[in-house]
Amino acid sequence: MAKKSKKISALQEKKGISPPDITDSKAVSKLISKRKKQPNTQQLIDGILKGNITSLSRAITLIESNNPKHLAKANIIIESCLPHANNSIRVGITGVPGVGKSTFIEALGMHLTVLGKKVAVLAVDPSSTITKGSILGDKTRMEELVKNKNAFIRPSASGNALGGVARKTRETIILCEAAGFDTVLIETVGVGQSETTVHSMVDFFLLLKLSGAGDELQGIKRGIIEMADAIVINKADGNNIKPAKLAKVEFNSALHLFPEKSSKWQPKVTLCSALHNEGIFAIWEMVLAYSKLTKANKFFETNRKEQNKYWLLQTIEAQLKSDFFNLDHIKSELLNQMRRIENQETTPFSAAEILLKLK
Amino acid sequence: MAKKSKKISALQEKKGISPPDITDSKAVSKLISKRKKQPNTQQLIDGILKGNITSLSRAITLIESNNPKHLAKANIIIESCLPHANNSIRVGITGVPGVGKSTFIEALGMHLTVLGKKVAVLAVDPSSTITKGSILGDKTRMEELVKNKNAFIRPSASGNALGGVARKTRETIILCEAAGFDTVLIETVGVGQSETTVHSMVDFFLLLKLSGAGDELQGIKRGIIEMADAIVINKADGNNIKPAKLAKVEFNSALHLFPEKSSKWQPKVTLCSALHNEGIFAIWEMVLAYSKLTKANKFFETNRKEQNKYWLLQTIEAQLKSDFFNLDHIKSELLNQMRRIENQETTPFSAAEILLKLK
Repeated sequence: MAKKSKKISALQEKKGISPPDITDSKAVSKLISKRKKQPNTQQLIDGILKGNITSLSRAITLIESNNPKHLAKANIIIESCLPHANNSIRVGITGVPGVGKSTFIEALGMHLTVLGKKVAVLAVDPSSTITKGSILGDKTRMEELVKNKNAFIRPSASGNALGGVARKTRETIILCEAAGFDTVLIETVGVGQSETTVHSMVDFFLLLKLSGAGDELQGIKRGIIEMADAIVINKADGNNIKPAKLAKVEFNSALHLFPEKSSKWQPKVTLCSALHNEGIFAIWEMVLAYSKLTKANKFFETNRKEQNKYWLLQTIEAQLKSDFFNLDHIKSELLNQMRRIENQETTPFSAAEILLKLK
Repeated sequence: MAKKSKKISALQEKKGISPPDITDSKAVSKLISKRKKQPNTQQLIDGILKGNITSLSRAITLIESNNPKHLAKANIIIESCLPHANNSIRVGITGVPGVGKSTFIEALGMHLTVLGKKVAVLAVDPSSTITKGSILGDKTRMEELVKNKNAFIRPSASGNALGGVARKTRETIILCEAAGFDTVLIETVGVGQSETTVHSMVDFFLLLKLSGAGDELQGIKRGIIEMADAIVINKADGNNIKPAKLAKVEFNSALHLFPEKSSKWQPKVTLCSALHNEGIFAIWEMVLAYSKLTKANKFFETNRKEQNKYWLLQTIEAQLKSDFFNLDHIKSELLNQMRRIENQETTPFSAAEILLKLK
């Protein structure tokens, strides 16, 4: 990963973007202190609102830092950007490794910039918290997009937990929108709860699939198909066209078995060949049709409000749990009660009562 | 509901079962104190372990009571029954109203008693907490089963929350198993989170459907199809046979799009006509095949352990949340922060931090 990531960093440096893969707070401090004219918080805010990519990039680095001083600055920046955010369409893109996500995003992103859009590409990748790698750090096929002045690519933030990555990504979306990016693409790979996380921060959720090769039966986790607003069968070219068309029929009939979405949008199945730039136009037309429908029926706005509520409650609940289960005496009694349940000496409910009394 | 429920009560009284729909603690106290020879806890335990239906029924009434004294007794009984529980197959049955759940359970239950099984039929019905009614209290079609000596039918417990109903049902399962019931059927209607609740307490989850009439698109909530181990298309008789066969093909192809279950069981779609007693034999053979497979690959046991763990954590988490969100100053600040989020003055994450500091 390192080599390719450096390549992107180098390319982004040319565009005036600071290296994106520095998330360790000490390294950030060092980096920041080295610079002669470190812009202050207000300068960063002004820069972002003017669409300055360097300011945007530096502010995101503050968000991604674990240094409390940086986070305090980041919070001021976010609050100042909030009134200028929200004017975008946020599209989540998921699919198993090998499905062609990067090629697809490159093709879609280039198409969007041709349409005059400003495109921010972010990633939620919980695996990056372990490997310190990032799905977007490892892209060679985005070479075109990374050089494009109307595109901004940022690898996944690291974090101790998916919750942390989610927060950092959500806050990065706000800054990107305040900087004038009207289209936000958020990529994720099907690891852990990452699709659910991304689904809860986007307007439109797109699932990339391959036809044949038993792909239908493997790799994609439960519930993902139900979340999708579109299933795009990629690599529908050459010998793949026939099985891709067959897969389209199958998915279409499967999608009809699901209950109507609260968005009133009937999920669609389409074919594309991102490599040959085929089908991309139709996919974007579909996203626009979705946007038109859901803005008319108010779902678009309601859904964003619901997402905010979800993240508020989700953050609180995660913290309440972590506060409780990280207490040393709870940890040991939990093991004890688990053993008692296993030995059929108690029920989960009695065990829970005992644990809660120790709070 | 009242009239039919009384009818069942009267029928069960003939079998020596106390009225099942008394869940109000005062009424229970009155009822219990009226009896001359009220059995003590040990007598109830002995009775249950001998398979005495009256003892079982009385103990369940204690579980369902809200009187702390009764609950203390209930806990002793449950703990004593625990080592004798677990020897059963637990089958969850769900479907929209009108799909024929009661007729199906009657037919399946009668079939099982003919096979020499002892069948307990329970229900999880969150709506009963509002209406004080119960899906199983409202059954005329179970007339055969309710008179059968090898069947025990118990309507849904009432409770302040689905969590309470879930706990009471789980504990009732333990008592039924200790009383020698080797097959536990748990009915639920698609209200709120009830399917997920039932899915988390059974070994095999069966979804009843109707063919045609747009049923595929309505009524069944997201995620239910993915939970199902079997989709049974009921009322497949007369003019319905053709659309039922078509629906079977459609569901089969849809089920193949889902990822493999950790049980390694490939969910099946079958037809039946519960009214004409057709297809019931094959459905039970399928449940047995599932049981054989999952006992061989250890999923059966692992899954029950996971369910225990789920209920332990679930109970704790629900309590932690309720403790926090019911604090008066949290309630008012939550409203305030919600308003600030709506006005784009803060992010869900900053709002969560402020609320958590008030804990």
